[in-house]
Amino acid sequence: MDKILDNVNTPDDLKKLNIKEKQQLAREIREMIIDIVSKNGGHLASNLGVVELTIALHSIFDMPKDKIIWDVGHQTYVHKILTGRKDKINTLRQMNGIAGFPKTSESEYDNFDTGHSSTSISVALGMAKARDLKKEDYNVIAVIGDGALTGGMALEALNDAGASKNNLIVILNDNEMSISKNVGGVPMLLSKIRSKKLYKASNEYIRNSIEKIPVIGKKLSKCIKRVKRSIKQLLIPNMFFEDIGFSYLGPVYGHNITELEDIMKMSKQIEGPVLIHVITKKGKGYKIAEDNPDDFHSTSGFNIETGKSKKIKKDDYSKIFGEKLIELAEKNTNIVAITAAMKDGTGLSNFAREFPSRFFDVGIAEQHALGFAGGLAKLGMIPVVPIYSSFYQRAYDQVIHDICIQNLGVIMCADRAGIVGNDGETHQGIFDLSFFSVVPNLNIMAPKDFKELADMLEFAVNLNKPVVIRYPRGGEGNIKFDKHEKIEFGKIETIREGKDITIIAIGKMVSRACEVREILKNDNIEAEVINVRFLKPLDEANIKESIIKTKKVITIEDNILKGGLASSIKELIVDNNINEVKLESFGYPNIFVKHGTVEEIEKLYGLDAENIANRTKELLISEDKNRIKTGKV
Amino acid sequence: MDKILDNVNTPDDLKKLNIKEKQQLAREIREMIIDIVSKNGGHLASNLGVVELTIALHSIFDMPKDKIIWDVGHQTYVHKILTGRKDKINTLRQMNGIAGFPKTSESEYDNFDTGHSSTSISVALGMAKARDLKKEDYNVIAVIGDGALTGGMALEALNDAGASKNNLIVILNDNEMSISKNVGGVPMLLSKIRSKKLYKASNEYIRNSIEKIPVIGKKLSKCIKRVKRSIKQLLIPNMFFEDIGFSYLGPVYGHNITELEDIMKMSKQIEGPVLIHVITKKGKGYKIAEDNPDDFHSTSGFNIETGKSKKIKKDDYSKIFGEKLIELAEKNTNIVAITAAMKDGTGLSNFAREFPSRFFDVGIAEQHALGFAGGLAKLGMIPVVPIYSSFYQRAYDQVIHDICIQNLGVIMCADRAGIVGNDGETHQGIFDLSFFSVVPNLNIMAPKDFKELADMLEFAVNLNKPVVIRYPRGGEGNIKFDKHEKIEFGKIETIREGKDITIIAIGKMVSRACEVREILKNDNIEAEVINVRFLKPLDEANIKESIIKTKKVITIEDNILKGGLASSIKELIVDNNINEVKLESFGYPNIFVKHGTVEEIEKLYGLDAENIANRTKELLISEDKNRIKTGKV
Repeated sequence: MDKILDNVNTPDDLKKLNIKEKQQLAREIREMIIDIVSKNGGHLASNLGVVELTIALHSIFDMPKDKIIWDVGHQTYVHKILTGRKDKINTLRQMNGIAGFPKTSESEYDNFDTGHSSTSISVALGMAKARDLKKEDYNVIAVIGDGALTGGMALEALNDAGASKNNLIVILNDNEMSISKNVGGVPMLLSKIRSKKLYKASNEYIRNSIEKIPVIGKKLSKCIKRVKRSIKQLLIPNMFFEDIGFSYLGPVYGHNITELEDIMKMSKQIEGPVLIHVITKKGKGYKIAEDNPDDFHSTSGFNIETGKSKKIKKDDYSKIFGEKLIELAEKNTNIVAITAAMKDGTGLSNFAREFPSRFFDVGIAEQHALGFAGGLAKLGMIPVVPIYSSFYQRAYDQVIHDICIQNLGVIMCADRAGIVGNDGETHQGIFDLSFFSVVPNLNIMAPKDFKELADMLEFAVNLNKPVVIRYPRGGEGNIKFDKHEKIEFGKIETIREGKDITIIAIGKMVSRACEVREILKNDNIEAEVINVRFLKPLDEANIKESIIKTKKVITIEDNILKGGLASSIKELIVDNNINEVKLESFGYPNIFVKHGTVEEIEKLYGLDAENIANRTKELLISEDKNRIKTGKV
Repeated sequence: MDKILDNVNTPDDLKKLNIKEKQQLAREIREMIIDIVSKNGGHLASNLGVVELTIALHSIFDMPKDKIIWDVGHQTYVHKILTGRKDKINTLRQMNGIAGFPKTSESEYDNFDTGHSSTSISVALGMAKARDLKKEDYNVIAVIGDGALTGGMALEALNDAGASKNNLIVILNDNEMSISKNVGGVPMLLSKIRSKKLYKASNEYIRNSIEKIPVIGKKLSKCIKRVKRSIKQLLIPNMFFEDIGFSYLGPVYGHNITELEDIMKMSKQIEGPVLIHVITKKGKGYKIAEDNPDDFHSTSGFNIETGKSKKIKKDDYSKIFGEKLIELAEKNTNIVAITAAMKDGTGLSNFAREFPSRFFDVGIAEQHALGFAGGLAKLGMIPVVPIYSSFYQRAYDQVIHDICIQNLGVIMCADRAGIVGNDGETHQGIFDLSFFSVVPNLNIMAPKDFKELADMLEFAVNLNKPVVIRYPRGGEGNIKFDKHEKIEFGKIETIREGKDITIIAIGKMVSRACEVREILKNDNIEAEVINVRFLKPLDEANIKESIIKTKKVITIEDNILKGGLASSIKELIVDNNINEVKLESFGYPNIFVKHGTVEEIEKLYGLDAENIANRTKELLISEDKNRIKTGKV
């Protein structure tokens, strides 16, 4: 039999299908997603959870005239398959392929770029206001998960949207993804709210449709119980949505296309903001993912039969961080750890098990996480807060206002710093060295390998000052270090001495610098390799000495060039009146870097050892003062 | 009769007073606050609103053993008077005097530094956890206003605190300060909640105390009505606090010391998080402020009899911004304005009146404000978003993620940039040039005077790209400009040509540069003065030309030196291999700058024209390569 999917390229094709065909389509899409993610890696469980929801959305609404904002955006594979990108799905998350997140540059069906959590209601409200000011007529829909709804930005937006009169549909995709601490439960009289709400709606169609509303029967009772628990955590007591001005529809079972379509049709008839409460199952339709949704939240390629990763699980920085933190916490009872809903990703799972009373998962709430850390630190605790580099952007004011003004001993671990690869623009951690450098009292470290991360963490918990330690996704570089000088505050480590050129590198790029040195040795060039260790305070005296010695400098960093290591070295040169220095900096230009593998991206921007070595040789022989400064680009 | 206040220096003294004496004390404190703010300026209405609340807090709790976190912190004058700083109150907000905000460096009674909104619950929860982990025994109290409770950080914290089991007292100081848009009203059955809550409490004392709970009689009915309205806006429907895990006490009339003390005593007896709902009146006891609380929120010195400001009201940048925006909005109906609860401060009052449908006050919710702007811009509107520089730190991720990745035409006006003066560390806008410079696609402008602000705003609304325009608090500099070259994208304006030295200045410092030029002329030094206009993109070609011509450079900016103008010029020098340049940079070191007048602070950090001129002369004659680089400090 032909596949239904073969004849579905756009939402218009989808609209022609009957319900049986749509159900079949859902199965085929699931198959396609499992297949592609098993090869390319990506977000599996969340996409399997929204297959029917996405089919219903594109059946009932008219994209791209109607606008849909996908919160976080990692659940858009189904949407991409249904909006003309089916044939490119094999390029998912690959360089020059289709992105793992919505991109307005990719398709007119993608109405707004997302990647970080909790933004969709703000954006959708903005779009709804724009529509109404322009007196245009279409629907604006935000699709947001229960986890994302704990973010302050989403709560701010909910408050504002509820008070507005604008037509706006918020779809709460409730898959109980919010962090799983046990907070007890308050009865959530969802069915009561639902019926009450619907009776209030005056529209004829809606009144006639009450019969169609999903009845909470036995099948749903387990879901409802889960909802009660997660809802509690979401800051959503009964009546909450109504009280702040939303019409509430639901809950509806998110894997029944007919019910979803019915409730969406109703939502279009209601004036003002509407919230549709949809209950979905993460990993739906792929048993292994249903049973272990966390393992299949974001996954590398895997074997479909067994669910086992194709990659041999190697150590990574997050794991080393977690292990060392446990070791330190055993000795020092003041150490506590805080995560913003990223326990596993940041390597804290074992810590959470070993020290449950000293582990805090505050939800997707980076701002609160850092303010909370400030309070703990003020009274003598030592909070360690691993957050992905790009999400530290969410807590910038708290780092400044609640930690650094008072010089509090909070250890901020910027995990996933540098290029993260396939997640693309929104997730690259290439700004943190720059924006953290701005903050007074903040000390910034980056380790060259696992051992140095452990050393730095130990150093940091004893420092009693605000510290950032930034480290990349994944494992160590190609060069292994057996020597590790003691960490000294604000001091570099000279890895290799040399007379011809000074290579100054930070973090994972120290290994790259050593690779470059090896290549240069073949041309009898002796490079001095400096491991910066502390971008702040910078070891000006020792760096200056080396620069004066060689008068030739290479800087390497996995950060934008603006405001990071390169900028600091240039400032040092001018501040110290060192003249006739030849310098070339390797790092990222001031742009947003698209998705691809880490290796591909590094090569594209000239950060591979070979290119750096070649350009260094050119620098050494060149008298050309006007050479391009920033690698290949 | 002797004043009661004469014998009250610490909370211990206060505890000895009877209720009549405390009431008299309240009157005396009011008098003292009105007197000092009429002289020094400051936050008047909010402090008059918490006189009884603060007296009750220090009567019932034992500071500094018990910890109190004052949200925003501008309402702590009473607290300061009662905790040993009465005799220094005349130095309030003055350089080297006591600060207008809590400072742990100032007193052991100040438990945490605050200044920005919505941080107190996070911090207090951190402290409560620290206390419990250390098995210590004291109370932790957060005092937060209704306006601050709309901030995402506070909502994130409320969610987390409600789920925790830790003893924590949140005092909601409800003075209806939240922005005043009409959102309609949902009945708030506060009295029902209150009585229900208290019956549930099992403690004997509490049950016996129910009689003492304020009954909602005629006197309070007006307050209650107000509460109903403001509460709606607060995202707090009935049951809200209970449902998320707080025990709710109140509402209590916040100007009745006895009632306040009773309810506080009760709160100490309850296990887990407690919220006390207190209703206060802004400006209480000073009729003119009661009637015009907004005018006395933050005020300069005034005549106590008339309430009239002692300062002659001069034009300021915010006013010019507001006027120009109206002019532009009349011509272009796509222009809309967004404020985060700062309509008056940012100069938008008239815009709001003229274009009510195109004006949006989203509450204290900077994150949402920028995400909302992104949605509006995506569909062709032109959102203009004036937010104080130091509060833009709150929306850093949204600037990056929701605006700049998609290169959306949002005009971000960073008002109160540079030194703001008496509000101190938390409010100085000296980081924005640096942290905005990091962001790809973001264009950064700063005007030299009012006319240029108007020109830049007009330029920006026609650019269709993300733009920051940053401008200071207050008025123009000493030098008046009659020539204004047309704004060209990424181009400097050469204000004066000269051959001896290049002075590169940005924003308000262009006027200062011209003052310096005048002084230097007396020594026959011809300075070229460059008005940078665009820090990003920087006019490298023209700046380079001038530097190569003079080989001597002065940079002046009202920002930290790290990451702002000085850094950009140093990078330009190295990137272009310009050797033998003498350069000196004037701006702020990488520290938090304390309070004082703008003039005092500028002088302290060597930014006055005289110092810059003197150092420039030294630079021109000096052969010393190791001079201090950053002004006086």
